[in-house]
Amino acid sequence: MKPVQIGVIGAGRIGRLHAENLVRRRGVIVKAISDLYPEAAREWASSIGIPHVHVDYQEVLADPAIDAVLICSPTDTHVDVICAAARAGKAIFCEKPVSFDFRQTIDAIASVAHAGVPLQIGFNRRFDPNFRRVKEWVDAGKIGKVHSVKITSRDPSPPSPEYVRSSGGLFVDMTIHDFDMARYLSGSDITEVYAAGGVLIDPAIGEMGDIDTAMISLKFANGAFGMIDNSRKAAYGYDQRVEVFGMDGCITADNDYPSSAQLYDGNGVHREKPKYFFLERYSVSYIQELDEFIAAVRGEGAVPVSGNDGLQAELAAYAARLSLKDGRPVKLEPIAATKGRFAG
Amino acid sequence: MKPVQIGVIGAGRIGRLHAENLVRRRGVIVKAISDLYPEAAREWASSIGIPHVHVDYQEVLADPAIDAVLICSPTDTHVDVICAAARAGKAIFCEKPVSFDFRQTIDAIASVAHAGVPLQIGFNRRFDPNFRRVKEWVDAGKIGKVHSVKITSRDPSPPSPEYVRSSGGLFVDMTIHDFDMARYLSGSDITEVYAAGGVLIDPAIGEMGDIDTAMISLKFANGAFGMIDNSRKAAYGYDQRVEVFGMDGCITADNDYPSSAQLYDGNGVHREKPKYFFLERYSVSYIQELDEFIAAVRGEGAVPVSGNDGLQAELAAYAARLSLKDGRPVKLEPIAATKGRFAG
Amino acid sequence: MKPVQIGVIGAGRIGRLHAENLVRRRGVIVKAISDLYPEAAREWASSIGIPHVHVDYQEVLADPAIDAVLICSPTDTHVDVICAAARAGKAIFCEKPVSFDFRQTIDAIASVAHAGVPLQIGFNRRFDPNFRRVKEWVDAGKIGKVHSVKITSRDPSPPSPEYVRSSGGLFVDMTIHDFDMARYLSGSDITEVYAAGGVLIDPAIGEMGDIDTAMISLKFANGAFGMIDNSRKAAYGYDQRVEVFGMDGCITADNDYPSSAQLYDGNGVHREKPKYFFLERYSVSYIQELDEFIAAVRGEGAVPVSGNDGLQAELAAYAARLSLKDGRPVKLEPIAATKGRFAG
Amino acid sequence: MKPVQIGVIGAGRIGRLHAENLVRRRGVIVKAISDLYPEAAREWASSIGIPHVHVDYQEVLADPAIDAVLICSPTDTHVDVICAAARAGKAIFCEKPVSFDFRQTIDAIASVAHAGVPLQIGFNRRFDPNFRRVKEWVDAGKIGKVHSVKITSRDPSPPSPEYVRSSGGLFVDMTIHDFDMARYLSGSDITEVYAAGGVLIDPAIGEMGDIDTAMISLKFANGAFGMIDNSRKAAYGYDQRVEVFGMDGCITADNDYPSSAQLYDGNGVHREKPKYFFLERYSVSYIQELDEFIAAVRGEGAVPVSGNDGLQAELAAYAARLSLKDGRPVKLEPIAATKGRFAG
Repeated sequence: MKPVQIGVIGAGRIGRLHAENLVRRRGVIVKAISDLYPEAAREWASSIGIPHVHVDYQEVLADPAIDAVLICSPTDTHVDVICAAARAGKAIFCEKPVSFDFRQTIDAIASVAHAGVPLQIGFNRRFDPNFRRVKEWVDAGKIGKVHSVKITSRDPSPPSPEYVRSSGGLFVDMTIHDFDMARYLSGSDITEVYAAGGVLIDPAIGEMGDIDTAMISLKFANGAFGMIDNSRKAAYGYDQRVEVFGMDGCITADNDYPSSAQLYDGNGVHREKPKYFFLERYSVSYIQELDEFIAAVRGEGAVPVSGNDGLQAELAAYAARLSLKDGRPVKLEPIAATKGRFAG
Repeated sequence: MKPVQIGVIGAGRIGRLHAENLVRRRGVIVKAISDLYPEAAREWASSIGIPHVHVDYQEVLADPAIDAVLICSPTDTHVDVICAAARAGKAIFCEKPVSFDFRQTIDAIASVAHAGVPLQIGFNRRFDPNFRRVKEWVDAGKIGKVHSVKITSRDPSPPSPEYVRSSGGLFVDMTIHDFDMARYLSGSDITEVYAAGGVLIDPAIGEMGDIDTAMISLKFANGAFGMIDNSRKAAYGYDQRVEVFGMDGCITADNDYPSSAQLYDGNGVHREKPKYFFLERYSVSYIQELDEFIAAVRGEGAVPVSGNDGLQAELAAYAARLSLKDGRPVKLEPIAATKGRFAG
Repeated sequence: MKPVQIGVIGAGRIGRLHAENLVRRRGVIVKAISDLYPEAAREWASSIGIPHVHVDYQEVLADPAIDAVLICSPTDTHVDVICAAARAGKAIFCEKPVSFDFRQTIDAIASVAHAGVPLQIGFNRRFDPNFRRVKEWVDAGKIGKVHSVKITSRDPSPPSPEYVRSSGGLFVDMTIHDFDMARYLSGSDITEVYAAGGVLIDPAIGEMGDIDTAMISLKFANGAFGMIDNSRKAAYGYDQRVEVFGMDGCITADNDYPSSAQLYDGNGVHREKPKYFFLERYSVSYIQELDEFIAAVRGEGAVPVSGNDGLQAELAAYAARLSLKDGRPVKLEPIAATKGRFAG
Repeated sequence: MKPVQIGVIGAGRIGRLHAENLVRRRGVIVKAISDLYPEAAREWASSIGIPHVHVDYQEVLADPAIDAVLICSPTDTHVDVICAAARAGKAIFCEKPVSFDFRQTIDAIASVAHAGVPLQIGFNRRFDPNFRRVKEWVDAGKIGKVHSVKITSRDPSPPSPEYVRSSGGLFVDMTIHDFDMARYLSGSDITEVYAAGGVLIDPAIGEMGDIDTAMISLKFANGAFGMIDNSRKAAYGYDQRVEVFGMDGCITADNDYPSSAQLYDGNGVHREKPKYFFLERYSVSYIQELDEFIAAVRGEGAVPVSGNDGLQAELAAYAARLSLKDGRPVKLEPIAATKGRFAG
């Protein structure tokens, strides 16, 4: 079978992670990578056998041998790169969020549709073995009709002020994964969001206009209810759990742990903290999401996470921001309908 | 030590449960019980050694030897009985809710305060060993400042239509325990409630104007956030879990199980369902709450659950009803402040 | 229904525990208790309503109104009391072990058989809800034919030297429960024992000729294998677990815990130690074993633990002692067959 | 850093597994593989970039560029290959067992010592994250002096008759891993073995003179006791657990599961079976053991599992076989001392 040739745009942490996963895979060649600061990436690229390192992502797109690109550059470049890649006829994998403005995301999706190329959004958590099993069991009808979805999603420690400043805010940067997980597990679109939240951890985050703690209520099109619980700091590490409740039962997924060892001593029973952060917890999911993207590039199936999935999560994040500001529940439908009139 | 003499008002399920627990206790005499249908109670009362069965609760109150009464009659009688018992100088234990109208509850509390008798509200879940340990650990500072409280509270099966009709509705009948648990675990008053909910289980419940599924967001006076998740039907039985998250960690309490046995077979790993319902899960709590009430009657300490605790939970239930009706978050303070103007 | 009248012989810890459980039970009267030091017992007996306290157990047996006796006196008195109670026509509940010499136990069982009275041995652990569920599932065929039984049985702290001196040794005092559990769960008699063990905790125990740590291999008549793991000191408290493995699966039972609360903090995930010791862990079992004894006294069924159950466990203990001494596996059958020739 | 060049001897399941793990590793080149049936291996070798496929392992040893060899050929070839590789000056990784006759193993170890090359035995389970954590905690003193080690080790289904015939028997083929784990976790040599066992699963195994079920008692040089529980068939899959008990506590390690998902339904609480078999459960351990071997080849440390570790486990297996045959405990020391007189 002819290998799939890949270009990676952006040699930051996530770009490198994807590239390293792909070079270990049979039937895939990572042919080029681009980064605005290519010097830093050259030695690394060479060590894992990526032949070309460019400054300009257009050079990646210009290579006719490249079948697909991974867009791992900063969020504010995504839309331009997507549109250019679509015009170049490349299959596209883009990290989340597509953009900071859902109207631009709508435009990017339209470009992709016009070009007829596949577009997969990087909601890697759908590929976590725990959450995937939950989804399989829900889809298999093990709990009947879904009544509620609850998501606990807490980071081990708050990001740096620089990161917070350019992150788009908690809802866009962090909760966006949870909005997608809520849609994935409920099998339904979010129709309404009510967000409560505040600054309980780090006043510096508040000074930048963001929050670090949130509790978000959801309503879904199928009548189910949802709840997302976010914190930028869990003293015990990354806390990523879900629960789906339905007419005939309930399915939960717990955190992963570095080992199953337990200590019984004079103070009680003890085990280690959960896996530290997303690189540890979600390592398998990053491999799996690209496996399925590669399969889609090969024409073996549709991409498992669509542009619309990206858009819906962005709309929910937008609604959450509005809800927090106004102190009221916010419906998603009117937002999506007002593209062109609203400021994000 | 002189025994404490108790009168029980109402010989329904909960009245009998309390009486049976008390007759096994040293230092306590259950001297009388009253019920509008005394015939049904006589044989039972005799079998456990309660000498007097009355129709009229006033006869219980008229017995000067009786130190304290347990009010286990229907909710719509509570306020009258409380006021009469207070006038009679009895220590009072009253099942929740105090009333269906928080303004009457305020009046009842005022009567009790005027009489100077102890009043304990039957929020038995505070005495569940699991939740009590959570509270102890929170109070001991094990997780630092509390950021959020999450409560899962699901019944194994919906009540009968008759019950629903006179229950006061989901928030007053069922969630009221959770509102109290939220205050207990957060150590703070609820200031705002946003309730989403609907009829996902039994249309008959909807036809009576009630809901069977709810997801309720809370804000607390100390800045923390809360979430309560209610269902009238969990296919796997009574589901009663809490989670308190704070600056330095998180504390959870799980359901109790009939046994710790686990079966590993060709289909997976299996254990029994949680303890079936409140009589099973909370059996210890019912004994413990009366132990502490008896101690208070003896003057060995304050009652552990006050009239104000009852009131605060009722205000939250009232706010939840209003929130659900209007589709917006509702603050508690203005409600409490408007006694006399509002209709419950 | 006519109440069952009980006499308790021996007012030590276990005698009092049984008496206190029985006085709370409807349909049972604890009419008398005997103890060589009756003064110490009088106030206690009076406080729970036991009318008669005797020095001589014969006075208990002489009361024709008494239907059944609980033998809770020191082990070296059991056989005499059993024989006398049998002659007096009383139903008998006797604490384990029946005696320190299996030949005397055989004689006692013969007396009981001759008198035609029920005899139940106090292997309370069979009535623990966890182990009982394991047994139910085994009997229901959930794991098919049993291949092995493993028992972990560790005390939280070693007994006093005085206790050790008169205990009969680890196998007779402690392991005897596990031998019975092994028979109960496997549904088969023990045919061979190999015991390894030593003094790893307290040299004082060794100086008295006993051991504090043992690992015992079993063979069963049905072809299954077994393992018992004993220690006189588990730093984390009472450790009482079983595992039954069979052709189609495996069933385990874990320890019980004071609560289900778990703490997640910067050091890991923590829960409390298991319930401290037998009074906490096995509290329900002590009530249940007497419920079933009372039912047998009423003629509602056979006793659930027979004299032969007591004998078989004693034979296994005897074999274990011999095995440890000789450093070889020891079969039970020849031991039982040599009554009259062997010294225990 | 100069890459380490590896030759793999034997292209069966385990040889391929190691080769595939190594080709993904930076700094390692798998230069050649040998197999008596090279045709079957050629396409596979080519697909992962191994340039040379030989029939004769001597050709691998003759390549001076090759630093180290992995011996993955059948057990009865190990000793010859080890000796030849040692003479060729290669670092050696050899699968377990070294041989079916501990006297040959002693000879092979002597050859290696004479040549001064590293020899690592493939006891991969030491590198399982769960068991490794247990070992770290034991070594860190978390449970004080070790009193006992218990190992549960059950396969999901019995091997084929062909496999059984050439496996060397349960103790040599399967328990050998557990003997090594017992030494690893106790930090002490096994001094005595008592093995009980039989044919409870598959009569065909018995007809070949082997057993399928065993319960093995151990004594250690440091005074601790041990127990190994083996079955060739666990209906619920691979069951690999350990428990180490000591003066100050206990450490356990459980099985690994494909996911943390749990289902609560009308029948109870359910999760998946443990990971199916050794390829799934121990996948990480296979990578880790070679990482440490490569480090040793580079001179960055000693091999983590020595030839003596291999020998000690073989001696225990030999003693177990003798114990089962003779029905008595067997000491290891006299066996090791009688090299030259005993038949394995």
